[in-house]
Amino acid sequence: MKIGVLGGGQLARMIALAGVPLGYSFVVLDPSSDACATEAADLIQGAYDDTAALDKLAALADVITYEFENVPQASARYLATKRPVYPAADVLHVAQDRLNEKNLFTQLGIQTPPYAPVNSLTELQDAVNSIGLPAVLKTRTQGYDGKGQAVIKTEAELASAWASIGEVPAILEGFIAFDREISMIAVRNTAGEIRYYPVSENQHADGILRVARAKPSDAITPLAQSYTQKLLEHLDYVGVIAVEYFQRGDQLLANEFAPRVHNSGHWTIEGAECSQFENHVRAVANLPLGNTAALGHAAMVNLIGDLPSQAEIMQIADTHPHFYGKAPRAGRKVAHVGIRSQSSEALEATIARVNKLRGAAGA
Amino acid sequence: MKIGVLGGGQLARMIALAGVPLGYSFVVLDPSSDACATEAADLIQGAYDDTAALDKLAALADVITYEFENVPQASARYLATKRPVYPAADVLHVAQDRLNEKNLFTQLGIQTPPYAPVNSLTELQDAVNSIGLPAVLKTRTQGYDGKGQAVIKTEAELASAWASIGEVPAILEGFIAFDREISMIAVRNTAGEIRYYPVSENQHADGILRVARAKPSDAITPLAQSYTQKLLEHLDYVGVIAVEYFQRGDQLLANEFAPRVHNSGHWTIEGAECSQFENHVRAVANLPLGNTAALGHAAMVNLIGDLPSQAEIMQIADTHPHFYGKAPRAGRKVAHVGIRSQSSEALEATIARVNKLRGAAGA
Repeated sequence: MKIGVLGGGQLARMIALAGVPLGYSFVVLDPSSDACATEAADLIQGAYDDTAALDKLAALADVITYEFENVPQASARYLATKRPVYPAADVLHVAQDRLNEKNLFTQLGIQTPPYAPVNSLTELQDAVNSIGLPAVLKTRTQGYDGKGQAVIKTEAELASAWASIGEVPAILEGFIAFDREISMIAVRNTAGEIRYYPVSENQHADGILRVARAKPSDAITPLAQSYTQKLLEHLDYVGVIAVEYFQRGDQLLANEFAPRVHNSGHWTIEGAECSQFENHVRAVANLPLGNTAALGHAAMVNLIGDLPSQAEIMQIADTHPHFYGKAPRAGRKVAHVGIRSQSSEALEATIARVNKLRGAAGA
Repeated sequence: MKIGVLGGGQLARMIALAGVPLGYSFVVLDPSSDACATEAADLIQGAYDDTAALDKLAALADVITYEFENVPQASARYLATKRPVYPAADVLHVAQDRLNEKNLFTQLGIQTPPYAPVNSLTELQDAVNSIGLPAVLKTRTQGYDGKGQAVIKTEAELASAWASIGEVPAILEGFIAFDREISMIAVRNTAGEIRYYPVSENQHADGILRVARAKPSDAITPLAQSYTQKLLEHLDYVGVIAVEYFQRGDQLLANEFAPRVHNSGHWTIEGAECSQFENHVRAVANLPLGNTAALGHAAMVNLIGDLPSQAEIMQIADTHPHFYGKAPRAGRKVAHVGIRSQSSEALEATIARVNKLRGAAGA
């Protein structure tokens, strides 16, 4: 069986590396000629809305999935007339639009930060009146890694914030004080079976994830699972999902979800019985799901913009380098370091050492 | 960096799958157009003695290694004039010839079963007179998985045994009663650092490995390490080696070694902190070696000649299927099942269930 992936970056690369041992082969559609997934997948080079490229993908692949959710919905719907596409194109309708996403959370009884739609400067003023400041103005579509966002601290900043995001449909979100950000990585297969990974605790800098730690048996787990379950079942979801939450006391406020494997789940390669990448393949290939239980004490540190050598990483015990085959460039995720330790103390000591490497959070 | 591999079968496939995350790419030389390593490696299709193919490999690869030791020594020596080749071509001189291999064991003080060279029917009679029966006649070169061997139980069988192996240079080995067969998988890098995996306990049927179990802290470990160390250091070896021993009481008798990653070490993918495949890449890439310590209770079951579906394997908890992308054919290794369990009891229960699958030892 051949699995098609929309997007040929590091997520598709790690999906393919996990799926080849299961006996599958992979083909990715990517606009770039040097998509890094091609070490373990064939490449169709083309735009995501190029019908000839989509036809080629559907001709080669038995089932199609994404590493990248900003694929045109029309492309996903077109592919779905030819092959099973997981998650379904309807999921993109929600995931690509922060307003639809927040509205669905609300509809399902999943708490969110306060939010309001903003389609004009006037509506922005109305939203600020109802939500208060500080707040974050976010484009409804296309934002990621902190892009398409403007923090508003005073009313004097409204016009410049509205201009800075390009005066496009947006939502204003109350800037809530939270204790930490977590994500729940879960997987659901076509039979409706669901498995949840231990909660990930996420540290960001400049809007980009830097460190994610596995937190098995965290007290917030039941609530995170319950919310995530509602979403998965409502969407009749197939594949891995990542739902990001802000935690405040014993409350979770849903921030957003990614309909794909997620950076905050990279620790599962070493730190879970079966990784998010293998479980995504299992789900879309209609197979029994793998065990999501933790293995040791695990974390992941992103290397961004700069890369140490393999040897510099490996000199630190318990580290597992994952290079993406991408040239370093400012702000670009070029590798991550998986860490699996025998104790939480050893894990923290190792994170501290890895954080001193070029490209890491503390560097 | 690009790593070249002589041979493009499942061992090269698993080397590449382990090495791509480290940031390396792979090219394999294989006579077959459908070499299964190509899911994660480029292919140069050609014979192992095809100078043009060897030139192409040396032009593409920064360093060259093997998944297959029966490469012509002249090819390895030719490649070594252009690129680093690990293990060195001299290792093939020993590994390809059972007599050289046994003589080296003896020279290094590593015990072996009784053996004698056989170049004629007369010499076979002399060897039987000195070693006794039963005994095994083995071709000096080219034998694997029980091929090129004849068991001799009575003197009446000498001529037919000599004929059956093709009347080629051979050795006769005393057919010793042993308690079990183990292998020691170890790795040495260019800096001379050595790491040893836990001993593997190997079960064969019809001369083919069926099940291998990791045996951390086995009492025989120090002796197995000591013998293996002598071999690695004498050969100035770089890469993973597998040395097979017969154990009789507290004695080890060296049977043979493979200058490559080995089927009896496949359990290291799930059952060790760093797998034999990744450690082989680390060694030939001149990197610090990974931790060879056991992770949980691990084993490997080969699937030979026939394949269950992915789902049939995954329905058994704690199993990790590894399909090689090869069509099933009688006697052909087409997949293995890695198993990592929380206890030795759970491991044995899982092995028993896996052994009922098509292609497995008990099927």
